[in-house]
Amino acid sequence: MTELDFIDQLKILATHPAARGLSDDAAVLPFGRHKLVMTHDMLVEDVHFLSTADPADVAWKLIAVNLSDLAAKGAKPLGMLMGYSRAGDDTWDTAFILGLKEAITHFCVPLLGGDTVSVGDGKRTLALTAFGEAKGHIIPARCGAAPGHSIYVTGNIGDAWAGLQLATGKAHASDMETSAALLRAYNRPQPRLDAGRALSSLVSAMMDVSDGLLLDASRIASASGVNLEIDLDRIPLSQSYKALFGDDEEARMNAATGGDDYQLLLTASPETVLPTELTLIGKCRPGSGVSLVQKGERISLPETLGFVHA
Amino acid sequence: MTELDFIDQLKILATHPAARGLSDDAAVLPFGRHKLVMTHDMLVEDVHFLSTADPADVAWKLIAVNLSDLAAKGAKPLGMLMGYSRAGDDTWDTAFILGLKEAITHFCVPLLGGDTVSVGDGKRTLALTAFGEAKGHIIPARCGAAPGHSIYVTGNIGDAWAGLQLATGKAHASDMETSAALLRAYNRPQPRLDAGRALSSLVSAMMDVSDGLLLDASRIASASGVNLEIDLDRIPLSQSYKALFGDDEEARMNAATGGDDYQLLLTASPETVLPTELTLIGKCRPGSGVSLVQKGERISLPETLGFVHA
Repeated sequence: MTELDFIDQLKILATHPAARGLSDDAAVLPFGRHKLVMTHDMLVEDVHFLSTADPADVAWKLIAVNLSDLAAKGAKPLGMLMGYSRAGDDTWDTAFILGLKEAITHFCVPLLGGDTVSVGDGKRTLALTAFGEAKGHIIPARCGAAPGHSIYVTGNIGDAWAGLQLATGKAHASDMETSAALLRAYNRPQPRLDAGRALSSLVSAMMDVSDGLLLDASRIASASGVNLEIDLDRIPLSQSYKALFGDDEEARMNAATGGDDYQLLLTASPETVLPTELTLIGKCRPGSGVSLVQKGERISLPETLGFVHA
Repeated sequence: MTELDFIDQLKILATHPAARGLSDDAAVLPFGRHKLVMTHDMLVEDVHFLSTADPADVAWKLIAVNLSDLAAKGAKPLGMLMGYSRAGDDTWDTAFILGLKEAITHFCVPLLGGDTVSVGDGKRTLALTAFGEAKGHIIPARCGAAPGHSIYVTGNIGDAWAGLQLATGKAHASDMETSAALLRAYNRPQPRLDAGRALSSLVSAMMDVSDGLLLDASRIASASGVNLEIDLDRIPLSQSYKALFGDDEEARMNAATGGDDYQLLLTASPETVLPTELTLIGKCRPGSGVSLVQKGERISLPETLGFVHA
């Protein structure tokens, strides 16, 4: 049974409309006059973060990946509950708390509760539930994209993947500034909360880019029943990324499949004026799945579209 | 650094009033006209459940222990998010899902989202966030008990501890009925949701009994700045418990410190008429901590008051 098979079994149980078929970034439940938006993501040592990672970065990431799900629904974060597993290393725990403090202060989201358990010498499993409030009738999902709609992303794509290459010694940057910028993108992702709120009532579909731009685009395609045609040359790369990996097809494919970007991927009618700085990367067409074009020509998809869980 | 030291560090970060100083069963946040009550508890294999446990029972327990926290705040459960770690055993995962379905149906609380991760051959760490809605101005905490207030519990105490002794082969019941009842109390705890809602506006302090009656009573004592004097002979034991372990001081001490009861422990002014079947087990007095009496005489506390985490 793969993770997807398991989730399919869970989907049979999760019939409440607020669960959105377990196919969205977050649950969305009417509560009073507004909507309660809730998400829960876990990070496992050696799967989602390196054992050698700075624990402060892990704390930051635990918070940021969950807030990114709220950003994708245009929700204002209200609080967090954390599930922390201690593995008997006080230095690690203390450094983690420092990172937690930094993130709580930076994002202005209070820690309201949770649980602490001991895993002995096992791998750390860290859990976070973040919840927020969304106003307005429509909370964006993955399923509203239609043929003719434009496809956009916030920010740059690929920097976190480049940072991971540096962190694991698979690449080396000759200048400190490039190295620092890319490592920062990997270690300290910045969920696009403001952009998410500005965009949420205007988009036809929106999600955050966590597993790879192409894989996440295929999820909007699948949920919406359209084809997402992405122009490889339009995918926005940072100067730092290009300094390290260049700008050729291979570099662009790596950026498009690397994941951990925590930018927003969205679709909207081409007439809609969007209030945020975005890059137009393609167009929705009748059909299914994701396809790639370059200089007006269809090109092959890479073997894997992103980070597929075992 | 012990778990309590770590939590003390977290308390410094959790300054929002909704966090209740990380000293309550749940976070309580005003949301619209009502209160949002949220809790997050984890279960770790070989710490909180036996590796040999029926996975369906583990699923039930994961849900029940979290709903018990909502019960203690008088909240009506609205939904749950689950963090599940797969350890590569399909049979286990399938059985877990069956138990999940049973619990979701039994408690009528929808599963709305969450995350699934793989831990390879590591220990399973299961996380659940449950949230609910509480009406009324006052959501009971642990800190309102005052000298003169009466101390009550719902249901019986000790059955889950007795069930654990049977499950681990440390005790043997000669008749099937006794055995089944006690194992059921351990494997399938029943959070006191209805009682919690009926009592919440009338009590001065309330919490659920998870780590042992005496230990949990000491937490109300500490939060309220009073002494909780409990009459050992008044602690309600079931017929099944008494059939297996008798009714002497040792049997009563084991029940009072065993934990996993998921009953409610509460205090109230003696004039308050409480609408639920309860057992009066003692009285709040000026002072601190918990103390025990038997036949009107003060007796020594046991060495450990309950399940203290490493």
